[in-house]
Amino acid sequence: MSDLIELSYALDTFYFLICGVLVMWMAAGFAMLEAGLVRAKNTAEILTKNIALFAIACTLYLLVGYHIMYASPDGGILPSIGGLLGSENGVDAVLAGGDDAPYYAMRADYFFQVVFVATAMSIVSGAVAERMKLWAFLAFAVVMTGLIYPVSGYWTWGGGWLSAAGFSDYAGSGIVHMAGAAAALAGVLVLGPRKGKYGRDGSVYAIPGANLPLATLGTFILWMGWFGFNGGSELKISDVASANNVAQVLVNTNAAAAGGVIAALIVAKLWFRKADLTMTLNGALAGLVAITAEPLAPTAPGAALIGAVGGAIVIAAIVALDKLKIDDPVGAISVHGVVGIWGLLAVPLSNGGASIGAQLLGIVGIFAWVFLTSLGVWSLLKALIGIRVSEEEEYAGVDLAECGMEAYPEFSVAKQ
Amino acid sequence: MSDLIELSYALDTFYFLICGVLVMWMAAGFAMLEAGLVRAKNTAEILTKNIALFAIACTLYLLVGYHIMYASPDGGILPSIGGLLGSENGVDAVLAGGDDAPYYAMRADYFFQVVFVATAMSIVSGAVAERMKLWAFLAFAVVMTGLIYPVSGYWTWGGGWLSAAGFSDYAGSGIVHMAGAAAALAGVLVLGPRKGKYGRDGSVYAIPGANLPLATLGTFILWMGWFGFNGGSELKISDVASANNVAQVLVNTNAAAAGGVIAALIVAKLWFRKADLTMTLNGALAGLVAITAEPLAPTAPGAALIGAVGGAIVIAAIVALDKLKIDDPVGAISVHGVVGIWGLLAVPLSNGGASIGAQLLGIVGIFAWVFLTSLGVWSLLKALIGIRVSEEEEYAGVDLAECGMEAYPEFSVAKQ
Amino acid sequence: MSDLIELSYALDTFYFLICGVLVMWMAAGFAMLEAGLVRAKNTAEILTKNIALFAIACTLYLLVGYHIMYASPDGGILPSIGGLLGSENGVDAVLAGGDDAPYYAMRADYFFQVVFVATAMSIVSGAVAERMKLWAFLAFAVVMTGLIYPVSGYWTWGGGWLSAAGFSDYAGSGIVHMAGAAAALAGVLVLGPRKGKYGRDGSVYAIPGANLPLATLGTFILWMGWFGFNGGSELKISDVASANNVAQVLVNTNAAAAGGVIAALIVAKLWFRKADLTMTLNGALAGLVAITAEPLAPTAPGAALIGAVGGAIVIAAIVALDKLKIDDPVGAISVHGVVGIWGLLAVPLSNGGASIGAQLLGIVGIFAWVFLTSLGVWSLLKALIGIRVSEEEEYAGVDLAECGMEAYPEFSVAKQ
Repeated sequence: MSDLIELSYALDTFYFLICGVLVMWMAAGFAMLEAGLVRAKNTAEILTKNIALFAIACTLYLLVGYHIMYASPDGGILPSIGGLLGSENGVDAVLAGGDDAPYYAMRADYFFQVVFVATAMSIVSGAVAERMKLWAFLAFAVVMTGLIYPVSGYWTWGGGWLSAAGFSDYAGSGIVHMAGAAAALAGVLVLGPRKGKYGRDGSVYAIPGANLPLATLGTFILWMGWFGFNGGSELKISDVASANNVAQVLVNTNAAAAGGVIAALIVAKLWFRKADLTMTLNGALAGLVAITAEPLAPTAPGAALIGAVGGAIVIAAIVALDKLKIDDPVGAISVHGVVGIWGLLAVPLSNGGASIGAQLLGIVGIFAWVFLTSLGVWSLLKALIGIRVSEEEEYAGVDLAECGMEAYPEFSVAKQ
Repeated sequence: MSDLIELSYALDTFYFLICGVLVMWMAAGFAMLEAGLVRAKNTAEILTKNIALFAIACTLYLLVGYHIMYASPDGGILPSIGGLLGSENGVDAVLAGGDDAPYYAMRADYFFQVVFVATAMSIVSGAVAERMKLWAFLAFAVVMTGLIYPVSGYWTWGGGWLSAAGFSDYAGSGIVHMAGAAAALAGVLVLGPRKGKYGRDGSVYAIPGANLPLATLGTFILWMGWFGFNGGSELKISDVASANNVAQVLVNTNAAAAGGVIAALIVAKLWFRKADLTMTLNGALAGLVAITAEPLAPTAPGAALIGAVGGAIVIAAIVALDKLKIDDPVGAISVHGVVGIWGLLAVPLSNGGASIGAQLLGIVGIFAWVFLTSLGVWSLLKALIGIRVSEEEEYAGVDLAECGMEAYPEFSVAKQ
Repeated sequence: MSDLIELSYALDTFYFLICGVLVMWMAAGFAMLEAGLVRAKNTAEILTKNIALFAIACTLYLLVGYHIMYASPDGGILPSIGGLLGSENGVDAVLAGGDDAPYYAMRADYFFQVVFVATAMSIVSGAVAERMKLWAFLAFAVVMTGLIYPVSGYWTWGGGWLSAAGFSDYAGSGIVHMAGAAAALAGVLVLGPRKGKYGRDGSVYAIPGANLPLATLGTFILWMGWFGFNGGSELKISDVASANNVAQVLVNTNAAAAGGVIAALIVAKLWFRKADLTMTLNGALAGLVAITAEPLAPTAPGAALIGAVGGAIVIAAIVALDKLKIDDPVGAISVHGVVGIWGLLAVPLSNGGASIGAQLLGIVGIFAWVFLTSLGVWSLLKALIGIRVSEEEEYAGVDLAECGMEAYPEFSVAKQ
């Protein structure tokens, strides 16, 4: 039998690693989405932010974050620093069996977890685009991926108090997406809107993205990567029940994204009288965020409906945030925050083990923690080094100010 | 032994799901290919079509198409509506064994099948680009993915009369690619060519694509995704023979694409006196389409030859269709239709179980069904809501007319 | 037990094939990276080169190269031509067992190996961009992928004299990356720098890339594909030890890339006073190249350090090569050559079985072989058909001269 256990261990490890590769690919998706939705003059900087935040997330989570998140599941508010990552799962430990026996390589678990942190941080970069200083952003990334995310991650996936309270969030509508959006919202509030976005009379000026094929590519990349994000969150595939579950999760993830697209397309057509590509892309992402809290329990048509509601909500949220003069160039707070909450609240619709009370507790707990700590960090950074580029730099584009280069140096660009 | 069967089931399910993810990725490939080959003013709309058709295909096939295609393999012309998707493969059913025992999750099968439908529909969008109304196109997508494709799919992979007649199409040169091209051809005939494409004196004006890096990216994405398309069509990998087969399929798929590139590059150089990038990309896709009907039986050099013939054919087909004033902006009818037929006719060259008679029967049967029903649907849509934008809208670009936005709003674009 | 062996064989084959698909995807990464870093007027040609070289590599390695590289591991300098590819691994051979029993499909091995050859060749295309004749380049690709790479590959992975001498290069920092860079360096020396790159007074003029989002996308694609490149080089995953190793390799590969990004970003900021996106991208690739020689033995923080040193080295190398008037538009010689050497020299730091002497022997041996034979081939091509476009063609852009088309025909482009 030992060979059979080894083979199961190998298959689960391989499955976990491949899902991790797909989630890593989402970093490219966010980079392309955001690069497509900003203006040409701010493109090189957003690309720099995206690749740098991924690198920072991987390094900080390796050195600090993972140890906080998974070290000591004793139910307290503040986790202790452990050393799980250093432990090895030798052949002996696996074969010794028992309920505590690991069934995949811990390194694979780390690999899968680290790309989730990067996803949360990627959400932030889009919302603060076109006016935030690069190095202030990267400093925030250090704190977010090394400390803020790991603590609420410990409360939930790490076995802490929210987990004990029955909060249910399969792949992270709240733990990853709403958390990223909460950090982004705090940043946007400290930072203020872009120059020229809102008129004194309350009017809202559209600032179109410079490269919609890139934004569409980014959305398709995220859609693809999400199969790893949700599919890997089953954590196991090596028996019939797990394999059926993973298959159901992929079917539902796809159905929800499709539902989000269709709903957003129709709502945009009815509301704005046009087939708005940007809103349709946000609809796909909203469908994906919405199903992430519970991609296993719904039927496939049910998943499509949950995604469709997400696709409708996201358009209303984008319009509402603009009314509140909360300037989010890519709609990240609406997609990941507002729709993330919808996803969490929808869990009890299909999962009998979840309760609306526990879901609300989780929403409030995670949001309050991430938003308030982020607000503190952004404010501190503002006081210490400043977080906003000068008005002249904003007008000329942050690419020249921060990166000393242009993203499209040869294409004649209309001045905005 | 039960654990071993469970593990095989898990491996086959995982293999199926990963192949499905790769085929889903082809949707991004078609979107990028088509966005690169149209003019800038029609780019946002083709992107909207691509993401919307994928969503529609997933939803319609879920609700209707899959049930038609796999419900009742009784050999009749019209399938009955079944409920296969609702069935569950519990551990008991799998362990009970027998020839009919499923060896992977049925949800995984659905996931793999649904991305094929989307592929067929993606073929259509390119051919009718730059002048078709968005909503007419989406209405056609509903019928194509919910009814037309599933019926001929039922005839073949669903166990219907073409399957019984010995028609052999491993991964769908005909069932997917030629079917998509037949629907596209019907659409192009009802729609007519783009303004300015053909002169009154019979001259053909080239309308170059606006963004060739995107088109190249799309081709690479499709090449990658095709490993899932063909590799997953073995349906099983959990024993030595199946694993060897999947490996052979991937080697042959890659060899055929390479053969198509080399042949198209050389033919274009000899014919047009230039290394035509667009033709080279079409050569890669032609090689892939050509080998799809039988990627297992040929040797690798044989597969390269089959692909190379496809790469040569596609150039001749593109030139010939232009002579006939059949205006296909991306060459989809040539790549998927004409070369799809070549792939089907080439099956008996390497697969002794196939006959040229059964292949011809399949070609005629599938083409006639899809082309005629599509012609009916396109004509009906033309009569009911119109399928072509106005001349003014076509001149200004369908992006403004349909989506109310530009794909590249900041880049100064030369008027065409 | 036989079913268990079959299942292990199937899992290892599947793992190998998926890793191969990821490495194939790197071809798209190189294409996008290079297309983003050249000027608009040379973009279509570099895309044509990239897809054509991939096709040539696959075909030549199939027909000739693989047989040279793996045919007769008898330790001699010149391998004999064998026929390994034609052999089949039937069920009997697998079940017969023994140390020599294959544990995965040989076709899967070929599939994995062939995409490595293409990687080596992709490195060359960037370095010689913007002034080399297309057909001379493709002729070189035939010799490189059919003969030059396979011979040094035979010396190492094929079991030849360098392997016997203890040279250690896990996934190919030297065998693939430095080899590609050596061929590129020879080409650049024969070819000379681009017009206008170096002034008579020794000044160096920056020639910025036309499309940095593409270059960033290419880098992310390469990062993703590298998980297959390094992860597949363990060759086996079906037991606990192998699975743990593969997981460690992916963690380390990711950590090294992250380290490279952070180091390059900081060094560029200190040196050039700006957050240089292009250098940051090169830092990611340098981290990946550096860890490729030994991605298993280091701890994850150790891997991050090895990558970070690579990220610092690459900037110094790029500056130094420009001082020497070695004009490499994309920095390929620095990234893959200079950092490849660093990676090879770093192996003994973590792998006790490696010696600095054997590493130096391998570096000198592979570099001398590839550089000298390449120098010969480039010189011969120069004498026979010429390898450089005319000054007029270079000024107008090689796209028009070679491909007869523009990559971005509608975007108004500033003349350079």
